Amino acid sequence: MKILGLSGSLRAASLNSAFLRMAAAHAPDGVMLVVDPAPGRLPLFNADLDAAPPDEVRRFRSAVAQADALVIASPEYAHGISGVMKNAVDWLVGDPRFVAKPIALVNTSPRAHLAQVALAETLRTMSARAVEDASVSVDLLGSGLDLSDVSQATDVRAAVDRMFVALAHACFPSMSVEHPDLPLT
Amino acid sequence: MKILGLSGSLRAASLNSAFLRMAAAHAPDGVMLVVDPAPGRLPLFNADLDAAPPDEVRRFRSAVAQADALVIASPEYAHGISGVMKNAVDWLVGDPRFVAKPIALVNTSPRAHLAQVALAETLRTMSARAVEDASVSVDLLGSGLDLSDVSQATDVRAAVDRMFVALAHACFPSMSVEHPDLPLT
Repeated sequence: MKILGLSGSLRAASLNSAFLRMAAAHAPDGVMLVVDPAPGRLPLFNADLDAAPPDEVRRFRSAVAQADALVIASPEYAHGISGVMKNAVDWLVGDPRFVAKPIALVNTSPRAHLAQVALAETLRTMSARAVEDASVSVDLLGSGLDLSDVSQATDVRAAVDRMFVALAHACFPSMSVEHPDLPLT
Repeated sequence: MKILGLSGSLRAASLNSAFLRMAAAHAPDGVMLVVDPAPGRLPLFNADLDAAPPDEVRRFRSAVAQADALVIASPEYAHGISGVMKNAVDWLVGDPRFVAKPIALVNTSPRAHLAQVALAETLRTMSARAVEDASVSVDLLGSGLDLSDVSQATDVRAAVDRMFVALAHACFPSMSVEHPDLPLT
């Protein structure tokens, strides 16, 4: 199972990016999560280029198409989706390969929720499939954790495990996901 | 009175850009509307660069600061703000010169309204001042007008005039705006 991770924040110390890196490092056997730097590399969306897009857009669309599922971890800026993430999503509108794609929406700052709601609405409009059980909230902002500590936090690891199990179930209902840290209750 | 126009669409035949060009051409005496190409030129927002931003960001912030008001005409993509426009706005978050800036939000496709609502919420969060009387809806998408016809449509011209009068009043309550096409009723 191949999962593509997308962060909506470009800052080096982004909690969203840290979450994705940590999740990638702790993916269960048989699951690979690759964090794609595309959101920070894509050009600004221009509908005139939609049919014959620049190389980076073509590569991004192909990576999304080939992934069994996406994990989107994106911050809230001024009560809205980050422009970086919305721009990446805008390039996927109308791509038939995006339809029904299972997506986990991760919120690393649960006090903010408007951007999550708006992003879920956009993805629903695009006929993607936000997987509710895989859409975890972990309060990394409020945790005061150093980025290197994130993977040591039991609740964060448990949330990551829940996310993978739910995504795997969404992609392959009959698949058994093995993971040493998998919460059994 | 100096007004900065920002379009959230980069396509050449954008109705939002067409509206802004038309408004610029029909600004009343004493009012200058300049359409700023910044939304299509800004880099993707990165909080790490916020304090010492690239030249284009610096120029954009300065142009916004020097404008008495803004006119934002932006499309709705998949029930959300265009990434292009949100990215431009993200670069203004926290700029004290943006606080209380009068803004007209133009909707050229009134059947869509979620992006307008989301953008208004973001601007409110940033303590800008969306001027309700200046925020006009003109159904350019449904009008079937050729772009060159836009300025010939009486209702569109009337909406533009209303917008300028309301913005002028918001900026300078005692200012008298003279315009041959100004609706007097």
